[in-house]
Amino acid sequence: MNVLIVYAHPEPSSLNGSLLDFIVKRFESTGHTVQVSDLYAMKWKPTLDADDFLNREPGVPFDAMRDSKRAYEAGQQTEDITREQEKLVWADAVVMQFPLYWYSMPAILKGWVERVYAYTFAYGIGEHSDKHWGDRFGEGKMAGKRAMLLVTAGGWKSHYSPRGVNGPMDDLLFPIQHGILYYPGFDVLPPFVAYKIGAGRVDADLYASLTESLEQRIDEFWTTKPIAFRPQNGGDYDIPALTLRPEIAPGQVGFAAHRSETTS
Amino acid sequence: MNVLIVYAHPEPSSLNGSLLDFIVKRFESTGHTVQVSDLYAMKWKPTLDADDFLNREPGVPFDAMRDSKRAYEAGQQTEDITREQEKLVWADAVVMQFPLYWYSMPAILKGWVERVYAYTFAYGIGEHSDKHWGDRFGEGKMAGKRAMLLVTAGGWKSHYSPRGVNGPMDDLLFPIQHGILYYPGFDVLPPFVAYKIGAGRVDADLYASLTESLEQRIDEFWTTKPIAFRPQNGGDYDIPALTLRPEIAPGQVGFAAHRSETTS
Repeated sequence: MNVLIVYAHPEPSSLNGSLLDFIVKRFESTGHTVQVSDLYAMKWKPTLDADDFLNREPGVPFDAMRDSKRAYEAGQQTEDITREQEKLVWADAVVMQFPLYWYSMPAILKGWVERVYAYTFAYGIGEHSDKHWGDRFGEGKMAGKRAMLLVTAGGWKSHYSPRGVNGPMDDLLFPIQHGILYYPGFDVLPPFVAYKIGAGRVDADLYASLTESLEQRIDEFWTTKPIAFRPQNGGDYDIPALTLRPEIAPGQVGFAAHRSETTS
Repeated sequence: MNVLIVYAHPEPSSLNGSLLDFIVKRFESTGHTVQVSDLYAMKWKPTLDADDFLNREPGVPFDAMRDSKRAYEAGQQTEDITREQEKLVWADAVVMQFPLYWYSMPAILKGWVERVYAYTFAYGIGEHSDKHWGDRFGEGKMAGKRAMLLVTAGGWKSHYSPRGVNGPMDDLLFPIQHGILYYPGFDVLPPFVAYKIGAGRVDADLYASLTESLEQRIDEFWTTKPIAFRPQNGGDYDIPALTLRPEIAPGQVGFAAHRSETTS
């Protein structure tokens, strides 16, 4: 299988750098082909702007959606964007690896999503009617591919627990797992999260335990059950309001209601 | 009062551009002083990396926290970072204005947070003991200042409702309102959110209604009741686990449990 790792950490000698090497080797030694988009090493441009789109009509106001659609369909995107889209098409699986910065992904990775996820490539596709509201949330160009987050966090696990001050990790990752990965069709595997990770704080025991768990996750990557997000057009939602139908997870609100296994 | 608007939209002739002009004028005409950090116009560098810190020891691995602390304390940050920190110190209020991109702030604004929020400026301050876990979530250098988000979203309001497919807007904004604004001490006002905003879709009626509501929010800015997030060191949390004490919002989990008015 083909694996794309989108990696956002500034320092190769960090724990993240070591874990990246580890997972690349493990995927390869178990028969898979890996490409890494090392965003810091590539000096990835994070800002989505008019410079991303070639041969724009002069004087026309910039509109991210309209410009993105035109450029994607006419082959007028910058080369760096096209290359990442080709990697996504090539991949059977995508791992996004990053340290949690201010409760979300680093800016450089957010900017990868904003620029690579072109209109009519990752969104704005499919019929919009009262039965179907675009090919998204379970449908889309990434359908049939798997994705997983590999995240390191400075805080303690309890700080990210269901009643922890930072909010539950599952909820913090929902906008990424549901809004960025499930949206264009990926099956999203449960995330791999390492807690209490800061400069120079990882001893040999913790490293051994992390790589042991990670090895298992990689070896089970193709058989792990994805998070059971509810397909938008599968009958659970009223269309076009896109609210859960009254009989689905009755009384539940919030992110967890969009996972079918969490109905109480 | 002094108002800093941190603004992230690429096109001045957009609705966001008009709303920015509108709020600047309204704050000024009601006696306040405004500075705008127009991140796209400033060509703000979004990526936090070793180039942000002057006179680094050659060959030492980059560590965002350690480097940031050293540079902040020794006056060895790049000029663009220092200038934004000075604006934050100057401001009595901060408005962050942006279009929602992939369920969060645009990369360029995320990179403003990552670079300007230096270690020992916005985090890593105060005593860490079993009674107090840093000056954060209600304490910190921004204590006594107010902050508000002004957000435009392409989707419909129902899509962001308590049972909407995107997740509730309050939850999507929690990592920003609680994790980025309340964290260093801001009092966070309820957000101003405009829905169904896309290219060329705003007619005169909608614009009039948006500016009317916005004018009211600005005129009531200094008296509006902030979101009642729970202070981390105020007795609601066990320290250092930082989980809500059993008698606080018993049985509640998730983001809403960290607001005292939402106890059921």
